[in-house]
Amino acid sequence: MANVTILGAGAMGSALCTPLRNNGHNVNLWGTHLDTKIIDRLKEDNVHIKHKCALPEGIKYFYNEELEEAMKDADLIIMGIASVGLGSVFKKAIPYLKKGMTVGSVSKGYEYSTKDKDKIIILPDLLEELLPDDLKGNIDFVVVGGPCKAVEVVWECPNSVVYASKNIEAAKKMRSLLVTDKYNVEVSTDVIGTEICAAMKNAYSVGLGMAEGFKAKDGKENKNCKAALFTYAVAEMGVLTKAMGGSYASVIGQPGVGDLEITCEAGRNRLLGEVIGGGLLGSEAIKKMNDEDITVEGYPAIRFGYELYQKLQDEGKIKKGNMPFLETLYAILYKDEPCYPSIVKLLNTCSGFEYDI
Amino acid sequence: MANVTILGAGAMGSALCTPLRNNGHNVNLWGTHLDTKIIDRLKEDNVHIKHKCALPEGIKYFYNEELEEAMKDADLIIMGIASVGLGSVFKKAIPYLKKGMTVGSVSKGYEYSTKDKDKIIILPDLLEELLPDDLKGNIDFVVVGGPCKAVEVVWECPNSVVYASKNIEAAKKMRSLLVTDKYNVEVSTDVIGTEICAAMKNAYSVGLGMAEGFKAKDGKENKNCKAALFTYAVAEMGVLTKAMGGSYASVIGQPGVGDLEITCEAGRNRLLGEVIGGGLLGSEAIKKMNDEDITVEGYPAIRFGYELYQKLQDEGKIKKGNMPFLETLYAILYKDEPCYPSIVKLLNTCSGFEYDI
Repeated sequence: MANVTILGAGAMGSALCTPLRNNGHNVNLWGTHLDTKIIDRLKEDNVHIKHKCALPEGIKYFYNEELEEAMKDADLIIMGIASVGLGSVFKKAIPYLKKGMTVGSVSKGYEYSTKDKDKIIILPDLLEELLPDDLKGNIDFVVVGGPCKAVEVVWECPNSVVYASKNIEAAKKMRSLLVTDKYNVEVSTDVIGTEICAAMKNAYSVGLGMAEGFKAKDGKENKNCKAALFTYAVAEMGVLTKAMGGSYASVIGQPGVGDLEITCEAGRNRLLGEVIGGGLLGSEAIKKMNDEDITVEGYPAIRFGYELYQKLQDEGKIKKGNMPFLETLYAILYKDEPCYPSIVKLLNTCSGFEYDI
Repeated sequence: MANVTILGAGAMGSALCTPLRNNGHNVNLWGTHLDTKIIDRLKEDNVHIKHKCALPEGIKYFYNEELEEAMKDADLIIMGIASVGLGSVFKKAIPYLKKGMTVGSVSKGYEYSTKDKDKIIILPDLLEELLPDDLKGNIDFVVVGGPCKAVEVVWECPNSVVYASKNIEAAKKMRSLLVTDKYNVEVSTDVIGTEICAAMKNAYSVGLGMAEGFKAKDGKENKNCKAALFTYAVAEMGVLTKAMGGSYASVIGQPGVGDLEITCEAGRNRLLGEVIGGGLLGSEAIKKMNDEDITVEGYPAIRFGYELYQKLQDEGKIKKGNMPFLETLYAILYKDEPCYPSIVKLLNTCSGFEYDI
C-alpha cells in the first residue's frame, strides 16, 4: 500500500483516484485555489461536481492552503494540473520533494523555456528546469499519453494509456500503483514522442473539425475530407516527432493515432475547427471562444508547433515544406486565410506528396 | 478525351461519373440485372435513386442486356461491382477486353481462389485468374483504396483516394482521367497492402462498433475503449499487410488509417458491432442483420482474415498470437464468446504487448 498525492482536483487528477483506491492505496487529493468548490463538495458527500458522480470512499481531501499536509509521506506525486498552471503549482510543491521521488504528470502541451524565452520545450523539461540544483536529475518524471476521457476512468470503463519516462523503472513503478483490469497502462521511454503527440493531436483536431464544419455552409457532409486529413495529421505528427528525436512507435500508438481518434470526435478543439469550417475567420472564431470563456488547447499548440517546425527546418531537421497541414492551420488561425479553399488546396498538395517520416 | 465504361451503376460506380464528366470524358454507365430500376430513372431525368440527386449531363446509360454496346471503344473499364458479384460480371466483360487495357476496380474484400478452393486471394488476383491465357499478364488492374463515401464524390466534396497497380503507369493513366481539384488521387504500386487494408478496415470497424455499443448496456460512453482499439486495429492491419508482402505505407496511409477512420464512424460494420456491444451474441446479431436483409462486409472479412492469419502463422510469417484483436473478433462473431469481457481481456493483453510489425 503506497501513499499517493494528487495535485489538482480537476477532471483528470480526481479521476485517477479511482484506480488508485481500487488498488487499496492511500490517496490525498489536493485542490488549487481554482478547485475550492470541488473540494467543498467532495468533503460533503464525495461527489465531484465536474464528474457529477461520487469518487471512491476513503480519499483524503485537501484545500489549497493544506499543501504541506497533503504532500506528507507521499511515495508518488501526480500533477493533475492544466498546462498553463503547471509551473506555478510545481514550484509550490518543490519544497516537499525528496531525491529519488517519482512525479507523474497528465498535463499536455508546450511551453517556453524559463532560461531561453525563445526556446520551446515539452512540459517534463519545464519541470526539470524548475528543480533546484540538488534535485536536478534526481526526480523521475513520468508523463501520461494516449486517449483518456477522465470521466470514463471514474466510471471504470476500459481504456489504455501510456506512461512514458526516461527511467522506465519509474514508469513501471507508477504503472504498478495504478493499473487495474479496466485502467490499462503501457510503459515507454519515449517521453518526447508522447509529449509531441499529446500536444499536436489537439492542433490537428482543430483541422479535422473544419471538415466537420463545412456541412454548416453547404449542407453536405465531408467525411471523406476529414478521413483524408486524419491520415495527414498522423503523418505530420510523425515528421515532428522524428525531428525532435522521438519514436515513431508513439505516433502509431496510443499517444498519436489513439488520442487523435478520440480528440477529433468531440470537444473544444473540434468545435473551434467546426465554426471556422462553417464560415468564421480564424480571428472571429477565437474571439467567439474567448467571449464564451472557452479555452482551446489546440490554438496555442498550432502556434507552438508551427514555431518549432520553422526552427527545425532552419536546423535542417525537417525538410522544407514537409508539414503542409500545419502550415495551412497556422495560416487559417493566425493569418485569417479562408478555410475551405485552403483545405482544398492542402488535399491537392498532400495527394501528390510523400511525407519524409 | 477518353472513352470510359463503368460496369455497375450502384453507389460507387455511378459516383465516378462525376469526376470523369468534369474532365470531359465520354462515359458509358452499364447496370447489372440488379440495377434496372437505377438505369430506368437515370434515363428518365438523370437522377440516381441511391444518391437522390442528378448525375452530370452527357452520360450514356446501358441496361444489363447492352453490355457489348457499353464496352465498345472503351479506353478504360472500371468495375463498380460489389465483391460478391465481381467474378461473374467480369467473366461477362472478358470477351470485350483487349490486350494492354486498364481495368480499375472499386470492389473490396477477399475471395477463395478459383483454382485452389482453400486459398484466400485478394480481388485483383481473382480477376487475373479469370482471364483467358491470351490476356493473362496483358491487362493492368488498378485497385482503389482510401476513404471514399460515394455520395460525397457526386457532391464534389474534397477527398483523397489511392490507385494501386503493379504497373504504376496504369495507375497514373487512370488517375489522369479522373483526378480533379476535389477528387484527389494518390498512386501506389502496393496492391497487396491496399487490398488487405480495404478488407480489414471493415473487420476492425465491427470491433470498434462494439465499444460504441457498450453504452446501450450501461448508459456509459466508452470512447477511451474505442480509441484504444482503433490503435490496435491499425497495428494488426500492419501485421497482416507485412506478412502478405504489402507495404506499411498503405497501412498508415489512406487505405489503412484513413479508411478505418471513416468506416468506424458510421455504417453497417459499426452497426453490427454496436448491437453485439449492446448485448446480442454474435450469432443473434448476424441473424438480426440477415432478417433485415443487411449485408455486412466486415463479417466475412473477419473469417477470411482469421483463416489467412492461421495460415500465415503456420507458414511462420506471423508470430503466434500477434493478432489478438482479430482472434477476439473471430471468437465473438463465430463462437459466440461474450463481447464485453472479451474486449476487456483484449485490452489487458494488448497493453502488455508489442506488435511485431
